[in-house]
Amino acid sequence: MEQSIVELVSSIKPLDKVAMAAAEEHLNRLTKPPGSLGKLEALAVKLAGITGKVANAFPQRTVMVMAADHGVCEEGVSAFPAEVTPQMVHNFLAGGAAVNVLARQAGAEVLCIDIGVNAEMTHPALIQRKVRYGTANMAKGAAMSREEAEEAILTGVSLVEEAVSRGVNLFVTGEMGIGNTTASAALMSAFTGISPQESVGRGTGLNDERLRHKVDVVKRALEKNRPNTADPLDVLAKVGGLEIAGLTGIILGAAANRCPVVIDGFISTVAALVARNLAPEAAGYMIASHLSHEQGHRSLLQELGLAPMLHLDMRLGEGTGGVLALHLVDAACRIMAEMATFESAGVSSASEPKEENR
Amino acid sequence: MEQSIVELVSSIKPLDKVAMAAAEEHLNRLTKPPGSLGKLEALAVKLAGITGKVANAFPQRTVMVMAADHGVCEEGVSAFPAEVTPQMVHNFLAGGAAVNVLARQAGAEVLCIDIGVNAEMTHPALIQRKVRYGTANMAKGAAMSREEAEEAILTGVSLVEEAVSRGVNLFVTGEMGIGNTTASAALMSAFTGISPQESVGRGTGLNDERLRHKVDVVKRALEKNRPNTADPLDVLAKVGGLEIAGLTGIILGAAANRCPVVIDGFISTVAALVARNLAPEAAGYMIASHLSHEQGHRSLLQELGLAPMLHLDMRLGEGTGGVLALHLVDAACRIMAEMATFESAGVSSASEPKEENR
Repeated sequence: MEQSIVELVSSIKPLDKVAMAAAEEHLNRLTKPPGSLGKLEALAVKLAGITGKVANAFPQRTVMVMAADHGVCEEGVSAFPAEVTPQMVHNFLAGGAAVNVLARQAGAEVLCIDIGVNAEMTHPALIQRKVRYGTANMAKGAAMSREEAEEAILTGVSLVEEAVSRGVNLFVTGEMGIGNTTASAALMSAFTGISPQESVGRGTGLNDERLRHKVDVVKRALEKNRPNTADPLDVLAKVGGLEIAGLTGIILGAAANRCPVVIDGFISTVAALVARNLAPEAAGYMIASHLSHEQGHRSLLQELGLAPMLHLDMRLGEGTGGVLALHLVDAACRIMAEMATFESAGVSSASEPKEENR
Repeated sequence: MEQSIVELVSSIKPLDKVAMAAAEEHLNRLTKPPGSLGKLEALAVKLAGITGKVANAFPQRTVMVMAADHGVCEEGVSAFPAEVTPQMVHNFLAGGAAVNVLARQAGAEVLCIDIGVNAEMTHPALIQRKVRYGTANMAKGAAMSREEAEEAILTGVSLVEEAVSRGVNLFVTGEMGIGNTTASAALMSAFTGISPQESVGRGTGLNDERLRHKVDVVKRALEKNRPNTADPLDVLAKVGGLEIAGLTGIILGAAANRCPVVIDGFISTVAALVARNLAPEAAGYMIASHLSHEQGHRSLLQELGLAPMLHLDMRLGEGTGGVLALHLVDAACRIMAEMATFESAGVSSASEPKEENR
């Protein structure tokens, strides 16, 4: 199975520089000071690099909400009980969660995948791809085997391929898993060397005492497992999560299919870090949506060279920040398609077009 | 005429605290950790305070793009020639500018008002309310008379009233006026005491040398005019602009009619500062949209106690950041209307609902 991941990684190509230069040239002809639409312009250029086309539109978009449980919950790392994972999966399937509401607004389809919920789940709309019934407690040993991590990644890739085959051309990462900010912080610390004091946050709302305990649990998990940081699959298996591995697959699959992938919050950005460490070219296909309230998120985005567009102090996950940012993706596309040029509108351009210090 | 402004100010009421408490209570029953939707929750609460209703929707929304010229342009403070103001007005009327594109996406109507363009303007869709043909050069004397500033404010108020009478219940501020970041910086420095070095930015794209010159022009304007900072109308008349005064009227008019008003970038936020200084209660009706690239914007928003939601490094004005933020206003409304509660979805709530340190 490892061979499949190697092949996948080698199928991810760099962005199309010719299309990017053409997009930039078009932007500079539009009736606005050069660069004055800021990140929307950078986004339009990136989208051109991803698809190879100057003009883009992404009418069929899918949020992949990966759900899984975490054995580390038995250490008391979350404000919510583990039973909330399957309960929230039912809420997603019924359309009542925040991600459903915001996805409806964005015209995005929500797919909910059981990739490792620690409960029997049945629902006609649930995509059943359970790799195992939750991870093991990483504070006591490996969260999962290397083979399970690979299987979860390839599950994500296959979901993207099915969606692409029916016309979807943009993906949003989403997740649900009580305990998953703990696994995410462990992965972040393992990959970046940033201490658990900085990578661990309050998640859904821990108080100071329980936050200190969570830092301690992450430290113990890293000491116990000693992941090989040069080997992303080893790190992912030992201190990761099934939904994080699944999202790594979504991101790699999107990149391999030249589709943009909008990265949600802290947990999704950790999956993006795993994906980048497996396949550096994958970073070009990522669009950062929002800066979350979770404390490690800012440094994580910096590590990936991504600039978030929404600063909403959200800390919910599910893909909520990601679907909110689809509006900005659409805005970047519309700017390219609909704005008048200086020439067509008869507007004079700047007397001094070059800005020295931006 | 001054009596009209006094009456207007006294008609602006504080936000409805009962509706705000009810909105907060509703938010805490929804299937998410309390407060985890961050600024969207604060926005939903503010909207309840503005309208007095827990559930809100703003289907009819108008961007008011106020256009005017600035005599100070003869000092060479902009990268673009003054003729661009009327040229861009024609571009707005033809639907080809960035604000038109983004307003179409947001389902918002764009009204373009000539409140002081220094040219004869005729177009069937242009709202002609010219107070004078551009301001005078504030580096040499008052930009306009006190009466003209009042007239421009009351023009903004009357435009809101006309719109409200046909069902509009949300406003976005927009503007066009070559030279207007110079007037805005002068107003900001006069009202806050922040030095021109900090309030003056690159506008549409000045180089270092011309930026230093612009700082110098603002200093000269403030020294020459010595505005009475305890008298907002005096400051506005001496170092302001006709479109800024018009937007001050839009904001005061929206507040008087209990309508939210989405504040665009630097120039619009200066108009918000003038409005707040005339009527402190008006601040409650303001929604900050984005943090602009213009250097004074961050401190200006802090001064007003407003937190921007979009960080896009935009520096275009026109109302572009404002219309982009309508999506977030709609998101806040949908969350209130459509999300499931813990009870209805059968989801367990937090074992520890109180977060000690947010």
